[in-house]
Formats: sequence, structure tokens, C-alpha cells
Amino acid sequence: MTGRLTVIGLGPGSASQVTPEAASAVRAAREFYGYKPYLDRLDLADGQIRHASDNREEISRAEAALARAAEGIDVAVVSGGDPGVFAMAAAVCEAIEAGPDKWREIELTIIPGVTAMLAVAARIGAPLGHDFCAISLSDNLKPWELIERRLDAASKAGFVIALYNPISKARPWQLGKAFELLRGNLPASTPVIFGRAAGRTDERIEIFSLGEADAGKADMATCVIIGSPETRLLRRKGSQPLVYTPRYATEASR
Amino acid sequence: MTGRLTVIGLGPGSASQVTPEAASAVRAAREFYGYKPYLDRLDLADGQIRHASDNREEISRAEAALARAAEGIDVAVVSGGDPGVFAMAAAVCEAIEAGPDKWREIELTIIPGVTAMLAVAARIGAPLGHDFCAISLSDNLKPWELIERRLDAASKAGFVIALYNPISKARPWQLGKAFELLRGNLPASTPVIFGRAAGRTDERIEIFSLGEADAGKADMATCVIIGSPETRLLRRKGSQPLVYTPRYATEASR
Repeated sequence: MTGRLTVIGLGPGSASQVTPEAASAVRAAREFYGYKPYLDRLDLADGQIRHASDNREEISRAEAALARAAEGIDVAVVSGGDPGVFAMAAAVCEAIEAGPDKWREIELTIIPGVTAMLAVAARIGAPLGHDFCAISLSDNLKPWELIERRLDAASKAGFVIALYNPISKARPWQLGKAFELLRGNLPASTPVIFGRAAGRTDERIEIFSLGEADAGKADMATCVIIGSPETRLLRRKGSQPLVYTPRYATEASR
Repeated sequence: MTGRLTVIGLGPGSASQVTPEAASAVRAAREFYGYKPYLDRLDLADGQIRHASDNREEISRAEAALARAAEGIDVAVVSGGDPGVFAMAAAVCEAIEAGPDKWREIELTIIPGVTAMLAVAARIGAPLGHDFCAISLSDNLKPWELIERRLDAASKAGFVIALYNPISKARPWQLGKAFELLRGNLPASTPVIFGRAAGRTDERIEIFSLGEADAGKADMATCVIIGSPETRLLRRKGSQPLVYTPRYATEASR
């Protein structure tokens, strides 16, 4: 008897940004695994069961969910944003590969969502309007030297850069170090966006220049977007500036 | 008298992937500008007006929408996927910057959506589970040499690569050339995904190896995802393989 496992992307945080497909998957599942703040967003019915776990326990959470699905239960794993971007979909795949054969027979469905960088970008203009990359700044699961190499390559090749997991209590210096490296490759005037809780009531979206960007103003829920040399800041009377990267690129980056 | 302009992301194509926020913005607007296949997805009421335009007319479409909004009309511009990713949000910002001062006073709202690469990734596993980039392969608005430089930098630095606008009648050779370049930097076994119409009834998602990937099988609506050296293919009994990129990276790419 094999159940189902659905990995659900709940979007950036506002109920208005949860897709009908995700809402329907929440109604259909019986037991829910996830980081507590994501589970807290769900409006569950009687008989639907929550299994909350801590932020850094992705693999044990995935294993627990798979084991329960293998018993024939309809299980959901919930992620904020999109589950495929630095989130639970990869952790579930890792656990399937390392786990017992029968986990490969579980019916696995992944429901995409609006990931943080898209929600933040939409609130400020179109900073991701041209070639861009997404980098997790966490060196828990990869060497810091690799992160530095990727920041260096991306900024030199003219990609806009979205940083996920920019900072945490256990990783206090990495974002400052990233800005330091990027200042060597990009103009000090390059727009940098700190976006937090986009679309929610506690939203905070701020624009700085790379020269003045202060890592201390970010926290673990911030998505940081760093422009390319083509990214433009457009001032407007009576409303916040727009930050956007044009669709065209006339000059090659270095 | 200044109206409003809302740039709406309709997601990959299925109504179940349109956010409530986007659906509500569609109900609120009076006149709609967009590429015809996107307008065709809308279920409009009496009195709501469509202005269809062709695929490559982004700037004139943005200008027409802004001019109408400046007259006090509630206008919407619709995009498939997310409007901030190689789509109308940047075109609208470009038109505002180049246009008359009063366009800067228009109330501009951008509604994010599920962009193609997220929808395709969700159908196949978690290929974007680690650092990745998105590149438009169209050389209509940037030199081909710049695209090659970015493909080279991204593949050497270990990014998964999502290609938008991979091929069209006017641009028949670029995707083949991109594969050729990438074969020089990545193992022939690297998984390559061709994803078309994810989540729709005519969905077609196929996995190839980089060594055998045939550009002729893509069309302009295909999103192509090329793995990194870390991307894994996980075979399963009775269902399609999973393609995923683990959250960890133990080895540095070259």
C-alpha cells in the first residue's frame, strides 16, 4: 500500500498569492510536514494533522513524510515560495534516492509557487527583467569558496543576482563578504534591493546602492537582489523609484 | 487625470496556476493589452476591452497601454508566466523612462506569477534545487557573443541553466550552438529538460542527456533546463525519472 506525497509551494506569504492548485492540494492531504511558520499559514480542517519541524531539519522532515506516505497516507510537505528553489523538493528527492526502494514507488507531485525573488522584484519594478541568477548564500551545504567563485563569475558576466538565505545568527558575516567581493566587480551605484515579506502586511522593500548596502539590515527572511551594470533606477514624483533591468543589452560586460 | 496600469502574470497556462491576486486584478481592469494567446486565456466580462498585439511588439504595446492609462483608464498588460522574467514588466519600465513625464505618475502595480522554469522543474523533480540562472537565448536585443560568454561563465561556475526563448523561426541555430558550447564544459551525461506547456493539457516534458539533446525538438514555447555537474537523474519503477540538483555541493566546479 503506497500513498502519495505532495510538495506544495505556498508562495511568498500572502493568501492572495497561493495558487488554486496549491490550495486544492492542501485540502486533499491528510498529514502535513513543514517548518512551523509555513504550517501556521494553513487553514486546516478537523482530521488534518500537522507535524512541525525546525528550519534546518529538511532531510529528517523529508524522510518522516516519505515514511508516512509509504504507509498509505496522503502526505503533504509545505514550503514557502516555490518548493523547487532552495527548498523541500530537492530534499525529498535526496531522501528518495538514499532511502528504501519502496519510496521510489510513492506518487510524488510537486506544486510550484511564486518564489521570493519574483515577489520582491514585482514590488520594485523589474530588476530580473534580463539574465539573472539565484544563489543560496548559505555555506552549511557547500564550501564558501564555491559561493565566492559563483558570485565572481555571475557579476563579471553581467547577471543580476538574487541571494537567498543571505544571513542568519549562525552565518553573520557572509553577506557582508559577498558585498565586498561584488564591489570589486560592479559600480558602487549598482542598485541593491532588500526585500522582506513581499506582499504581506509587514512587507519591507528597500533600495540601496551597492556602495552603501549594509548587510546588517538583512535577516534570514530577506531576499537580496543585486543589479547588473545594466540595471537602472528610475525616479518618480510621488511614488517610490522603479528598479529595472532592460530587456536589451547593448554593451558586453567585461 | 491619471489612471492605473497593472502588469499581470498569468502563470504557465493552467487556470489552476493563476494566483487569486492575478485573477482579482483581471476582474478590476477595464482594458487589456497583450500578446493574443495570453489575452485568449482571459474570461472577460461585458465592457472589458482587449487590445491584442504580436509577440515582438513589447515596446509599442507598453506605450499604448501607458498612453491609455494616462487618460485615466484602468489598464492591464498581461504576460504569461511571471511578467518580471523576460516579459512585459521591463518593457513597461523602459517605456516609462523614455516617455513623457506624466507616465511616471501612473499608478503602476506588478503582479507576479509562476514563471515557466518553476512549472517545468516541478513536473520533473527539482532541477533548480541549487544555484541556477535564467538566460534568454534571443539575440534580438543583445549580441550573441554576450550570450555565449554567459553560457560559458554559468556552466563553468556550476549553475543549472534555464533557457527562455530558446528558438524561433527567425532564430533557428542559436540553441544548437548553445548545446555545442555547453558540451565543451559539462559531462555528456548532464540531464537536459525540454519543458513545454507545463501544467496544461498539451504538456510535453522530456529528458535528454546533453550529449544527445537535439535543438530541433524545441520550439519558442519550450523552456530548456540544463543541469549542472551535480544534477542527478533518479530512475523509478513505474513512473518517470526524477531530475534534481541536491541542496549540497561537495565539490567545487572548475
